[in-house]
Amino acid sequence: MIKAGIVGGTGYTGVELLRILVMHPQVELCVITSRSEAGKPVSDLYPNLRGKIDLVFSEPDPVLLSACDVVFFATPNGTAMISTPALLDAGVRVIDLAADFRIKDVAEWEQWYGLSHACPDLLDEAVYGLPEVNRELIRNARLIANPGCYPTAVLLGLLPLIEANLVDSEQLIADCKSGVSGAGRSANVGSLLCESSESFKAYGVAGHRHLPEIRQGLEAAIGMPVGLTFVPHLVPMIRGIHATLYATSLKADVDLQSLYEDRYADEPFVDVMPTGSHPETRSVKGSNYCRLAVHQPQSRDTVVVLSVIDNLVKGAAGQAVHNMNLMFGLDEDMGIDAVALMP
Amino acid sequence: MIKAGIVGGTGYTGVELLRILVMHPQVELCVITSRSEAGKPVSDLYPNLRGKIDLVFSEPDPVLLSACDVVFFATPNGTAMISTPALLDAGVRVIDLAADFRIKDVAEWEQWYGLSHACPDLLDEAVYGLPEVNRELIRNARLIANPGCYPTAVLLGLLPLIEANLVDSEQLIADCKSGVSGAGRSANVGSLLCESSESFKAYGVAGHRHLPEIRQGLEAAIGMPVGLTFVPHLVPMIRGIHATLYATSLKADVDLQSLYEDRYADEPFVDVMPTGSHPETRSVKGSNYCRLAVHQPQSRDTVVVLSVIDNLVKGAAGQAVHNMNLMFGLDEDMGIDAVALMP
Amino acid sequence: MIKAGIVGGTGYTGVELLRILVMHPQVELCVITSRSEAGKPVSDLYPNLRGKIDLVFSEPDPVLLSACDVVFFATPNGTAMISTPALLDAGVRVIDLAADFRIKDVAEWEQWYGLSHACPDLLDEAVYGLPEVNRELIRNARLIANPGCYPTAVLLGLLPLIEANLVDSEQLIADCKSGVSGAGRSANVGSLLCESSESFKAYGVAGHRHLPEIRQGLEAAIGMPVGLTFVPHLVPMIRGIHATLYATSLKADVDLQSLYEDRYADEPFVDVMPTGSHPETRSVKGSNYCRLAVHQPQSRDTVVVLSVIDNLVKGAAGQAVHNMNLMFGLDEDMGIDAVALMP
Amino acid sequence: MIKAGIVGGTGYTGVELLRILVMHPQVELCVITSRSEAGKPVSDLYPNLRGKIDLVFSEPDPVLLSACDVVFFATPNGTAMISTPALLDAGVRVIDLAADFRIKDVAEWEQWYGLSHACPDLLDEAVYGLPEVNRELIRNARLIANPGCYPTAVLLGLLPLIEANLVDSEQLIADCKSGVSGAGRSANVGSLLCESSESFKAYGVAGHRHLPEIRQGLEAAIGMPVGLTFVPHLVPMIRGIHATLYATSLKADVDLQSLYEDRYADEPFVDVMPTGSHPETRSVKGSNYCRLAVHQPQSRDTVVVLSVIDNLVKGAAGQAVHNMNLMFGLDEDMGIDAVALMP
Repeated sequence: MIKAGIVGGTGYTGVELLRILVMHPQVELCVITSRSEAGKPVSDLYPNLRGKIDLVFSEPDPVLLSACDVVFFATPNGTAMISTPALLDAGVRVIDLAADFRIKDVAEWEQWYGLSHACPDLLDEAVYGLPEVNRELIRNARLIANPGCYPTAVLLGLLPLIEANLVDSEQLIADCKSGVSGAGRSANVGSLLCESSESFKAYGVAGHRHLPEIRQGLEAAIGMPVGLTFVPHLVPMIRGIHATLYATSLKADVDLQSLYEDRYADEPFVDVMPTGSHPETRSVKGSNYCRLAVHQPQSRDTVVVLSVIDNLVKGAAGQAVHNMNLMFGLDEDMGIDAVALMP
Repeated sequence: MIKAGIVGGTGYTGVELLRILVMHPQVELCVITSRSEAGKPVSDLYPNLRGKIDLVFSEPDPVLLSACDVVFFATPNGTAMISTPALLDAGVRVIDLAADFRIKDVAEWEQWYGLSHACPDLLDEAVYGLPEVNRELIRNARLIANPGCYPTAVLLGLLPLIEANLVDSEQLIADCKSGVSGAGRSANVGSLLCESSESFKAYGVAGHRHLPEIRQGLEAAIGMPVGLTFVPHLVPMIRGIHATLYATSLKADVDLQSLYEDRYADEPFVDVMPTGSHPETRSVKGSNYCRLAVHQPQSRDTVVVLSVIDNLVKGAAGQAVHNMNLMFGLDEDMGIDAVALMP
Repeated sequence: MIKAGIVGGTGYTGVELLRILVMHPQVELCVITSRSEAGKPVSDLYPNLRGKIDLVFSEPDPVLLSACDVVFFATPNGTAMISTPALLDAGVRVIDLAADFRIKDVAEWEQWYGLSHACPDLLDEAVYGLPEVNRELIRNARLIANPGCYPTAVLLGLLPLIEANLVDSEQLIADCKSGVSGAGRSANVGSLLCESSESFKAYGVAGHRHLPEIRQGLEAAIGMPVGLTFVPHLVPMIRGIHATLYATSLKADVDLQSLYEDRYADEPFVDVMPTGSHPETRSVKGSNYCRLAVHQPQSRDTVVVLSVIDNLVKGAAGQAVHNMNLMFGLDEDMGIDAVALMP
Repeated sequence: MIKAGIVGGTGYTGVELLRILVMHPQVELCVITSRSEAGKPVSDLYPNLRGKIDLVFSEPDPVLLSACDVVFFATPNGTAMISTPALLDAGVRVIDLAADFRIKDVAEWEQWYGLSHACPDLLDEAVYGLPEVNRELIRNARLIANPGCYPTAVLLGLLPLIEANLVDSEQLIADCKSGVSGAGRSANVGSLLCESSESFKAYGVAGHRHLPEIRQGLEAAIGMPVGLTFVPHLVPMIRGIHATLYATSLKADVDLQSLYEDRYADEPFVDVMPTGSHPETRSVKGSNYCRLAVHQPQSRDTVVVLSVIDNLVKGAAGQAVHNMNLMFGLDEDMGIDAVALMP
């Protein structure tokens, strides 16, 4: 059994990790920390876990965490980087669900996140935990930077095109839509039901922190700078991301369907749907799948890719467990093979 | 492995059965029928099942169904009763998720359902599949009448009071609220998002088919007629039932909390929450639990019981699988131990 | 033109007042105060008002407020009572949308609201602003206690029965359901979309502040104590209250439909629907109507009344403007005759 | 008073027309037809209109319709074109809210709509009723083709750029999101709450009927062919359209904010929001406004325009009444100056 700890387990990625890990056949949850809820049983905060877990939230304690085989950070940005070096020294493997280790360029990270990085020397070692790109590196990693939700959906949607150098990489557009859980469980007015339901809006058009992360992933694939316009939107629903991706100047005579099917033929969690499909976010609700469809409307040279994930699963906790499974040599889909809840 | 068939698998209880059964470690799904979708792969209709199931909807075929160990009917009322006698004769066990075998009094059934019963002789044998009441009968049953969603929530909430004869059984009130999936997947205007979201209403105040079913369950417990007012309402959400139950003339000095905790101490799927709790339907979304809380506001002699279930799981498909597990000697929670999806 | 001021205009009742008053043909909005938003144009906070209003939120200023003909308080409980005496002395009429003047018994008020009342001497003078009960008193009032949302829906639903003394007034039940806007615009976790959508729950079963207010209204009608069980619930929608009301021991041979139609025959904002109706909250969304239906299921002696309002209009801002219209001798429906937005 | 008739008043655009027209100070509603609901009072189908309208749905009757000054068609595509010639001959002005007269090229219309056009000779005369483009033509028109909802949002968002020839008109992208009311009130499974809430999807990527309509509007503005990729999506909400528009190769040194503000300076229903804004669809819910914001992310040469309307008001019934006001010399905003309902 893998001894696992969770730091910062009160947010939505935290409770989703809990939901997955309490049912994982090879994991023993040993510690879950929360400064704000220390002393409270986990199931008091999350009644869906009543009867499934006896743990009590505890103050972060380096000794307890060091006794784990793996520690997940489901904390705000800037927290994991404080504790990670000591945990790695203690032989603990670390999976950060926040952004501390996602951007390789420390200056760019510091600009977008407004913090000084506490351990820039670890950025090189940290593996960007997108299994569809870095599977082998993940297996041997000590430190995983679990990808952001938008980057997961966008990269999986664009990589086949970019890797094959089939479109104009200077004019990529990612029009993305996320459920409100992407904004977390903090009490801000904009996430109130009365503010965010029965409405739709864009946000962060001037610049969003996932922009450099997506760009980095695309540039790594193609080996040159890309031009990307990224516009996130807020959808009046709890879970789900839908990325609508546009790429122009498609080279002639490409069989897009085969390109995508071949690229993901061996991927357990990427489902390339049949030609003409329109994946719905609900088809992945509560599951670790990414479903894709690729279109070429009116046979013009613009490609439209539709990519859906559950932002809390494939976009966060599920992908983190996928990474853990890889790191510990387990079956890739262990504990994350649930069927989406539908309706 | 138990060979299972599903008749009528295109509605919401059907797809929920599929979601549970494809992950059940002791079930082999052999056949799923649908006249309207015959020939279509199941995963075309329900993309959440892509990669999980290879079955194709087929025309109902007595031969194929007779080769099953158990057949679930997820059909409209009046269908199961046609095929059940032959299946039983062939040694197949039958679990009907519709109402054909729920009411023992055939005249009352025919009045509420507007049909002549095709096999009234089976009504005596059919076991009302509420494990918290009929566990031992279920183990040996050939034919299960799987309870309705409202009756499940109401009976589990009222039974401890009624069995102990602590309240006025002539003045019971069940104010129930259901998500829209309770209305099924048929295309009627009232279930459109634009008609049922951002609104709340009662329906069927004059009389609802679950009224006689609830009354029968209460009367069986107390051995005398009861007076029940049952008002169902439609909640703008997909899943969940919340029953708010009122009973008056409470006998003095009853420890209600202990009464409930004792009654359900050994029940794997009934969770009596701590004093003062307000269970949320989302705490059981996608799970087979019923969560209960019992209140005595202002210490008056009126008891208020709050009871929540997922109408598609504990109120339909999950309870059906619970019954199957009992019938085949499996662990009661096999395949239905999922944690509710939250948020 | 009536010069109107609003104190505390940033919450949902505040913006609803604004929406109504900017279109009211006889009102000139002179001042709107907010400590937190002072200096910000109203239309920056509420873009729906762009182009309709030039006002800027200002610090509360007694001089400016005293120059108004009427001041509306859309503030938290305990605020209006501080400023009201001086405003009345200055000849300003006051309509308090909070609870400061609703309860006649100061001890009971202080118990439920946890505050010392600042001007208990005004409680006698304050008129409870339910036009269907106190129309003539309202016309001449200086100080209006605008009713709570739940009390408005419950009182309008029960009054015909209570006034006629037709039921057991010791065993009344009000099972009420409210949209989330009833919880206001403050940033609390429970009102987040991800916490309150796709779920349903009761709250405050042990005791809610509207309980004494409803009880007072019923007791005033019947002249004796009543027994009331009041259970509020939260519905995953923005606006609307649905009260399902139960009264038992109905005296024989009462024509309930006529009773209700007669009681409200001259009321511009109470709509008694035809026999057998189930009013939907959306049928009053954005409008000042209360729609009622009265049922006697299975001809038993239990009456079920269904009552719907928009909690922000008839349950708050619309009723406040109705009161203002009465106080200033205007047509009762001036500025509040909008048709509900449907769908 | 203008005598108005409505043909096909049972759908969502029909009831929205009713909501607006019953409150319009210069309109007398004379007739409303519906084959399916003939004989039923309008307020039985739409309880929000109880007390506001006495009309009964009637069979379509050419004589009654011919007595009107204006007839609105809120019918499925292909209906208005049958009756329009006779009505025009009778001196009645016609506003078609469907698509019969929107496309000037009859062959293109017939291809996209799959019908033979009944009166192609009227296509030239029909005025495309977008006041911001055709105000003067509308004033004198006999026959108005009321624009589609997506075309309204997209054209208002792109026209300033296109008219000024500032971007690459071969690579325009319109990523559009609509509430479910855009699918109408017909009973289809895809519009059920349980199918469309808590989910997000694209649809019609291969080609949507509004594509040629938008293209025609853009080409009319620029006088040459344009290349447009149009992807509509379904948002889990009732009302609202959000168009996110992308145009590339922006010419240098353009003051986009001024461009938009100047273009719409005199438009009563187009609100260009301040730089950096993200308009929400709820800010126009129930109102006739289009709110726009224009962005140039990271100062690259890609322009992002955000455009929101209420699909049933500015995208249908409100714009139709705006057209009527222009045709009859009334104030443009008469009857359609309502403030959006928020929250």
